[in-house]
Amino acid sequence: MPVGTAGTVKAVHTRELEADIQAQIILGNTYHLYLRPGLEVLRQAGGLHRFNGWSKPILTDSGGYQVFSLAQSRKITEEGVTFKSHIDGSKHLFTPEGVMDIERTIGADIIMAFDECPPYPSTYAYAEQSMQLTHRWLKRCIERVDQTEPHYGYAQSLFPIVQGSTYKDLRAQSAEFIASCEREGNAIGGLSVGEPAEMMYEMTDHVNRILPRDKPRYLMGVGTPANILENIALGVDMFDCVMPTRNARNGMLFTTEGIINIRNEKWKSDFSPIDSGFPSYVSQFYSKAYLRHLVISKEILASQIASIHNLSFYLWLVGEARAQIQAGTFAGWKNRMVEVVSRRL
Amino acid sequence: MPVGTAGTVKAVHTRELEADIQAQIILGNTYHLYLRPGLEVLRQAGGLHRFNGWSKPILTDSGGYQVFSLAQSRKITEEGVTFKSHIDGSKHLFTPEGVMDIERTIGADIIMAFDECPPYPSTYAYAEQSMQLTHRWLKRCIERVDQTEPHYGYAQSLFPIVQGSTYKDLRAQSAEFIASCEREGNAIGGLSVGEPAEMMYEMTDHVNRILPRDKPRYLMGVGTPANILENIALGVDMFDCVMPTRNARNGMLFTTEGIINIRNEKWKSDFSPIDSGFPSYVSQFYSKAYLRHLVISKEILASQIASIHNLSFYLWLVGEARAQIQAGTFAGWKNRMVEVVSRRL
Ligand SMILES: [Zn+2]
Ligand SMILES: [Zn+2]
Repeated sequence: MPVGTAGTVKAVHTRELEADIQAQIILGNTYHLYLRPGLEVLRQAGGLHRFNGWSKPILTDSGGYQVFSLAQSRKITEEGVTFKSHIDGSKHLFTPEGVMDIERTIGADIIMAFDECPPYPSTYAYAEQSMQLTHRWLKRCIERVDQTEPHYGYAQSLFPIVQGSTYKDLRAQSAEFIASCEREGNAIGGLSVGEPAEMMYEMTDHVNRILPRDKPRYLMGVGTPANILENIALGVDMFDCVMPTRNARNGMLFTTEGIINIRNEKWKSDFSPIDSGFPSYVSQFYSKAYLRHLVISKEILASQIASIHNLSFYLWLVGEARAQIQAGTFAGWKNRMVEVVSRRL
Repeated sequence: MPVGTAGTVKAVHTRELEADIQAQIILGNTYHLYLRPGLEVLRQAGGLHRFNGWSKPILTDSGGYQVFSLAQSRKITEEGVTFKSHIDGSKHLFTPEGVMDIERTIGADIIMAFDECPPYPSTYAYAEQSMQLTHRWLKRCIERVDQTEPHYGYAQSLFPIVQGSTYKDLRAQSAEFIASCEREGNAIGGLSVGEPAEMMYEMTDHVNRILPRDKPRYLMGVGTPANILENIALGVDMFDCVMPTRNARNGMLFTTEGIINIRNEKWKSDFSPIDSGFPSYVSQFYSKAYLRHLVISKEILASQIASIHNLSFYLWLVGEARAQIQAGTFAGWKNRMVEVVSRRL
C-alpha cells in the first residue's frame, strides 16, 4: 500500500499510481488530513476519493501513531489523547469516538481503530496497561462505527489492531481479543518501531497463528522488501510503509538486483537503465547516471523517478509473491529473493 | 521553450513534456550543465539528448547570464570571464572559444553565442562598451564554431545575440551587426531585466525592423503571457522563460481565465478543475481546492501539477497565436487575450 500521507503519494501523479505502479489501494494519514486540508474541506469535497481523484480503495490509519511521533505536548487519558499540532501548535483531542467520526468524514474504505502504539522497548507493565487501554478504546470504536452510517453511500470496514509490544503472551491475549471482535480484517501494530527483525517475525508468527486465516491480516508500517517477504511467509496479507517513497527521496533504490545508493560515485557514468530487469517506464527510460545527476542537483524530478520506481518494484514484488504462493513455489522463491533484495550494489 | 536548467524541466517527466505539454524544443543552461553533471559525463553519455532522453530539439544558452547573476567573484576581461562556482566556489574561466567547445560537448541543436548582458539601468557609455565587447566575442564564437565539427553527427546552429541595453541607436547598431553575420537565427538579449514593459516592446520593435524576417527571431528570457503576445505582435518567433515553472512552484497559475494565486483562501473549497476551459489532463483532473491543499502542505505534487499546467498553457497560447496569424485574425485576438491573461482572479 503506497503511503499517501496528506492525500497524495509524494511526488507521484494519480495516473502514475494507476498505470505505472498499479496500486490497488493507498493509505491516508488521519492525523495529517484532519489538520490539512481539514474536515470541513473534505466533507464539502465529498470525501478523500473525490478530493484527490483516487477512485480505488483507500485505507486510513487512526492518527494514533502520528499523535505519538509528531505532535507536541501529548497527554493520554482514558478518554483519549490531547496534543498540539506540529504545524501551528493548536490544541486538539482525539478520542476513539472522535477518530471514528473523522474517518467517516475522510471516507476511506478501510478505517483503522484508534490505538496506543507503545515505544520499543517498553516494560511489561507498560505494554500490558497500554494494550488494555487499546482494547477498551477498540470497544468504543466499534460501538461508534456500528451506531453510525458512512457519509458517502459506500461501506467502511473497521480493522482492529493487535498490540502487546514484544511480549508473546500479551500479543496472544491481544490477538484473541481482536479476533473475537469479528471484523472484516485485522491488523498488527506496534512492530517495526526499532526492535530487531527477528523479534518482529516472532511476534507476527505468534499473532498470525491466532488471527483468522480467512480475513486479511495487515502488518502496519513494514518494511524493507526482505521484511515484507518474510512476513508474507508468516501469513501477512497487507503492508504499508513510507520506505519506498521516503528512501526514494534520499536516493535509495530497491531493484531486481539489489539496493542502490544512487548518490554513490560509482553510478556517475553508468548509462544503463535504473533497473534493466524491471519492465516499467521510468526504470527503463532513465539511466542511473542521469538519476544520480538529478539527485546530486536536488532536482524534483529525482524524487519523482525514484518514487515511481520503488513503488513499482514493491508492488511487483508482492504481486510476484502472490503468484508464487498460488503456484506452490513460494518458499524457495522467497529465500532466493530475500537474498537478492537485501544485496547492496 | 520550457527551461530545463540542469538537463531537466523542473518537476516534469520527459513523457509529460512530449504528451501533455507538447513542447517542441527545450532549453538547457550551459553554466549549470558545465558544473553538473560536467562535461566528462555529458561526453560519455553522447550529449545531453542521450543523457536526459529528450530527442526533440534543445537550445543551450551561453552561460553568460548565469555567470553574471549566480556566480561569485566574476571578473570580465577581453579574454573572457573568470568566476567562482555558486556550488563549491571552484574557479573557472569562460571564453568565447571555450563556451563554443562546451556547447559542442553538450550537443544542443541551437547554441547561443557568448555575450555580456549588461544590467538595467546601464549608462550609455557602459552599454556601448559592453555591446562592442559582445560583438568582438561573437566574431571569436563564429570563428570557433566554423572551425570545429559537431561531436554527435548532427548540425548545431549558432545564434548571435543583439545587445545595447535600452538605447535605440545602440540596439540598431547591434542588430545591423548581428544581421550581417548571416547565421540561421538571431536573438535579442538584455531585455526583461527590470526595465518597464513598454521600454522592452520599444526595443524589440526597433530591433525586429532590422533583423531579417525570414529567420527565427528569439527574445531571450521573456516573459509573462501578455509580454509574449505583445512581442509576437512585434515579430518575435521564439521565447524562453522560467516564469511558467518558477511561478508554478510558488502557486501562481496562468489560465484561460486569468492569473490565479492558488494559495489564496478563496480557492479553499473550490472543487472546480484548475482550468475548466483548458483541455489538458492535469488542468481537468485536479481541482483548485486540491492543488491549494498541496501547495499549502508543501507537497512535491503541487509543483508537478502546476508546472505541467503552466507549461501546457504557454505552449497552447503560442500555438494559438500562430494559428491566428495564419488565419489573419491575430491583431484582434491578441488584444482580447492580453486582457484575459493579465486579469487576476
Ligand atoms: Zn515503515
Ligand atoms: Zn524570464
